[in-house]
Amino acid sequence: MSDTPFLKNVWYVAGFGSELDGDFVSRTICNQRIVMFRASDGTVAALDDRCPHRFVPLSMGKRVGDMLQCGYHGLGFGVDGTCVDNPNQPGHDGRKDICVRAYPAVERHAAIWIWMGDPALADPGTIPDFSFMAEDDRFAAPTGYSHMKANAEIVADNLLDLSHVHYLHPGVHDGSDFASFRNEVKQEGDTLWSMLWRPRYYLSPERRALWGLDAEWVEGQGHTRWDAPGVLAVYTAFWKQGGSIEQGVQIPSAHLLTPETEYTTHYFWATARNFQIDNAELSARQVVAVKEIFETQDGPMLEAQQAFMGSETDLIKLRPVVLKPDTAGLMSRRMMKQRRRAEAGMDMGEVMAAE
Amino acid sequence: MSDTPFLKNVWYVAGFGSELDGDFVSRTICNQRIVMFRASDGTVAALDDRCPHRFVPLSMGKRVGDMLQCGYHGLGFGVDGTCVDNPNQPGHDGRKDICVRAYPAVERHAAIWIWMGDPALADPGTIPDFSFMAEDDRFAAPTGYSHMKANAEIVADNLLDLSHVHYLHPGVHDGSDFASFRNEVKQEGDTLWSMLWRPRYYLSPERRALWGLDAEWVEGQGHTRWDAPGVLAVYTAFWKQGGSIEQGVQIPSAHLLTPETEYTTHYFWATARNFQIDNAELSARQVVAVKEIFETQDGPMLEAQQAFMGSETDLIKLRPVVLKPDTAGLMSRRMMKQRRRAEAGMDMGEVMAAE
Amino acid sequence: MSDTPFLKNVWYVAGFGSELDGDFVSRTICNQRIVMFRASDGTVAALDDRCPHRFVPLSMGKRVGDMLQCGYHGLGFGVDGTCVDNPNQPGHDGRKDICVRAYPAVERHAAIWIWMGDPALADPGTIPDFSFMAEDDRFAAPTGYSHMKANAEIVADNLLDLSHVHYLHPGVHDGSDFASFRNEVKQEGDTLWSMLWRPRYYLSPERRALWGLDAEWVEGQGHTRWDAPGVLAVYTAFWKQGGSIEQGVQIPSAHLLTPETEYTTHYFWATARNFQIDNAELSARQVVAVKEIFETQDGPMLEAQQAFMGSETDLIKLRPVVLKPDTAGLMSRRMMKQRRRAEAGMDMGEVMAAE
Ligand code: FES
Ligand code: FES
Ligand code: FES
Repeated sequence: MSDTPFLKNVWYVAGFGSELDGDFVSRTICNQRIVMFRASDGTVAALDDRCPHRFVPLSMGKRVGDMLQCGYHGLGFGVDGTCVDNPNQPGHDGRKDICVRAYPAVERHAAIWIWMGDPALADPGTIPDFSFMAEDDRFAAPTGYSHMKANAEIVADNLLDLSHVHYLHPGVHDGSDFASFRNEVKQEGDTLWSMLWRPRYYLSPERRALWGLDAEWVEGQGHTRWDAPGVLAVYTAFWKQGGSIEQGVQIPSAHLLTPETEYTTHYFWATARNFQIDNAELSARQVVAVKEIFETQDGPMLEAQQAFMGSETDLIKLRPVVLKPDTAGLMSRRMMKQRRRAEAGMDMGEVMAAE
Repeated sequence: MSDTPFLKNVWYVAGFGSELDGDFVSRTICNQRIVMFRASDGTVAALDDRCPHRFVPLSMGKRVGDMLQCGYHGLGFGVDGTCVDNPNQPGHDGRKDICVRAYPAVERHAAIWIWMGDPALADPGTIPDFSFMAEDDRFAAPTGYSHMKANAEIVADNLLDLSHVHYLHPGVHDGSDFASFRNEVKQEGDTLWSMLWRPRYYLSPERRALWGLDAEWVEGQGHTRWDAPGVLAVYTAFWKQGGSIEQGVQIPSAHLLTPETEYTTHYFWATARNFQIDNAELSARQVVAVKEIFETQDGPMLEAQQAFMGSETDLIKLRPVVLKPDTAGLMSRRMMKQRRRAEAGMDMGEVMAAE
Repeated sequence: MSDTPFLKNVWYVAGFGSELDGDFVSRTICNQRIVMFRASDGTVAALDDRCPHRFVPLSMGKRVGDMLQCGYHGLGFGVDGTCVDNPNQPGHDGRKDICVRAYPAVERHAAIWIWMGDPALADPGTIPDFSFMAEDDRFAAPTGYSHMKANAEIVADNLLDLSHVHYLHPGVHDGSDFASFRNEVKQEGDTLWSMLWRPRYYLSPERRALWGLDAEWVEGQGHTRWDAPGVLAVYTAFWKQGGSIEQGVQIPSAHLLTPETEYTTHYFWATARNFQIDNAELSARQVVAVKEIFETQDGPMLEAQQAFMGSETDLIKLRPVVLKPDTAGLMSRRMMKQRRRAEAGMDMGEVMAAE
């Protein structure tokens, strides 16, 4: 299979809910420019950001109540995408025969989730659980955004193989006993888990102070959960050796990857914690630190990788050398490929045969 | 018909005459880089701006009398494009077998008009009348230039559908009774007219003072004349209700659109007036104001439209929704298409059949 | 023949030896990104700058002794390109089945020479003599680098036709008797010579002082030697009329052209002299002056030429007008074409027939 079209029947993260507190937001998702706003009844409208008259972005116009008014000749479109105001008609009547496409969209876990495929299949029940980002009040979860100049799957690769931390982010695991870490990868339905146990993990004095764990050596985990099309939770936690995770420090993080184009990715992220959750200054500092790492360490590396891959989006076609920690990345690619093929109309038997 | 080549047998505006007061001007017109200068006898030379030796722009060289000397190895070319100086020959003799293409060009109505097609067909009598730009001394006509990142026909569309003014240029028609305006479109030979009457037009106190019309409500017109390949005059005027245009304020404007490439347009414009014609400070102020509108309101909108159209230049192929004020734009596109087909060698019967 | 692939079995200049005094240097040569370093035994390593695991530049990693360690997941590669360290193996064992391509490279005449073709054919004995750059202690030879946005062959054209100096670099030959210069072009094996004699050459008072030649008129030469793929020496010298070159001023220069891509060229150059060879301030001044000329006079002209040539790399296909001083340029192109065809597997009889 030579092309890798975007998966359609899946929930993509289109932004943070807080972005809709203003008028509207325009963002390109899977090569489609989408304009979103929160209507007066609280529902989220997500429309093709392209007026069907002269093909200009509706986001260059303005919002008039629950209507977007085109900034060129004034056509107005409602929450469901139909033209509700044509200034060339007596009384500004709308025209039912004119409309822009509206996409199912819901606000959940501090994020906006959009469905680019068949609206009849859009079930919010399939949105993976990221309640630590909003609903679970044990956590503070400051968020951020980074634009990655790389295909979304190679950004996911980065997160699914944490061995890169030792080389790309020196300092993070200093002092720890890398050889003692244990990794296990397993698929559960449409979900993939890459579980990492760290039975002996070194804490620097600074961390001990910050985390309130008065031990030089602790045990910990870094369990990564992946769901299509590339929404990941990394459940990182540390606790006293022999103790339990419930008494420990939990720092789950969210990594929500949405293709802007084949070669660029929206990276919405959250870095949560179950300690000092009212410390806003700490939250702000963490956001700066994480953004710095993503944009000056991972970002340039992934951009360079994409540059070498050129117009190719499927790493596998370039026949990379395979190392032990590649397992989870390879499995997620296989799961994505199966879903894309299934959407393209092949039945599962054919998919298996074609592998 | 899938391609939209440039019309060849038509006069394009290549610049303002005043630009030739210096040495020479180089400009890309219909994808051809042209170098122009005014020879000592007053005629305008317009040559391919490309030395036939190593294919560098002649405009990187210098003018020596009525000759352009290539800046690389010194070949010299005269007004008619033939090589009149070869430094490698004894006595710097020219070489008749070497030449660059010369284009018919004339200076008229403050502009330079160039003919990109068959020189035998170049009749300056077919240049549309823009005498308010220069020859008619009732008018002052300050001029300006804006570079538009859009196909020339979608820039013309903008000018042929003035309903956009209400949305893209708020403030301009404030207070006026839009519903009372009357529009009529008609074709006269190769010329298209979109006539607009405003029987009840509101004048703000500032306009009353500027225009010397002491009435809150006046009547007016905004008649747009279009000729191929996209040279438009908008005859705007206002006068006291029941009075005549001759006693009124006349503010004709010129909009001279020349394709630089398929996706970019030279927009030469003039904003004339029949009042305070010696007020240079007013002229300067008007140029700044018009340039601001074209480049910060129309320009970004048209650039966004072209971005959505991608490599397409023919709006119609994208099947836009059609609104009432689109009539003139559609007619001008049809007239252009007929002329392009005629140039491509189809007779008119075939053209009609192919529509 | 419609394509002009890069010649492979030839020595390209990859940089100056002094650049390897630091850690490593990464540079694109003939569209290949190469990373180079000088190993502890003094040999030069030149490797594909692309990790075979995730296709990122090895030069984004770091040097650990004579090994390059990938900055993403830590694979280490030795001087010969094989993987000598895999952090995922017990004891960081290497993996012999993983490697990056290593290219023959030698350091000579102050430059690094790399062989992009069959290693079995890489004979350093075929490197042209540029001993005035380093080994010949009669000369000081300050060096510099200019990036040219043009195909390497049109940069060579520029150097093989010095008639351009009169137009592109006014001032350099002012006062000299151009008509009296004599030129002769000859091929000697794989080497091309364009010899220029200047029996009557004018020296300005400044030059007389700088060069220590107290005569207004001298005689001189400017013999250009070209070798594939575009490494040129220009043996410029001046001496008193009736005297000999040995007693004169010699200012040989090196012009080492290496394709970065089809459309951009690394221009490594040296401007040597046999006078005031210990005057570092003079050397610094000359480097600034030469760089200024190459980058503000030749550079823009060649960039404009390439822009007109578009994606074409073979000037001849565009059917340029031919002038007398084009002889050497045409011969060098022909010699390049023959070698490329020979590499492509045609025998010489076919090459001649195909001309
Ligand atoms: S482009 Fe939107 S109304 Fe005309
Ligand atoms: S490029 Fe014009 S004379 Fe050589
Ligand atoms: S990319 Fe080099 S080791 Fe993974």
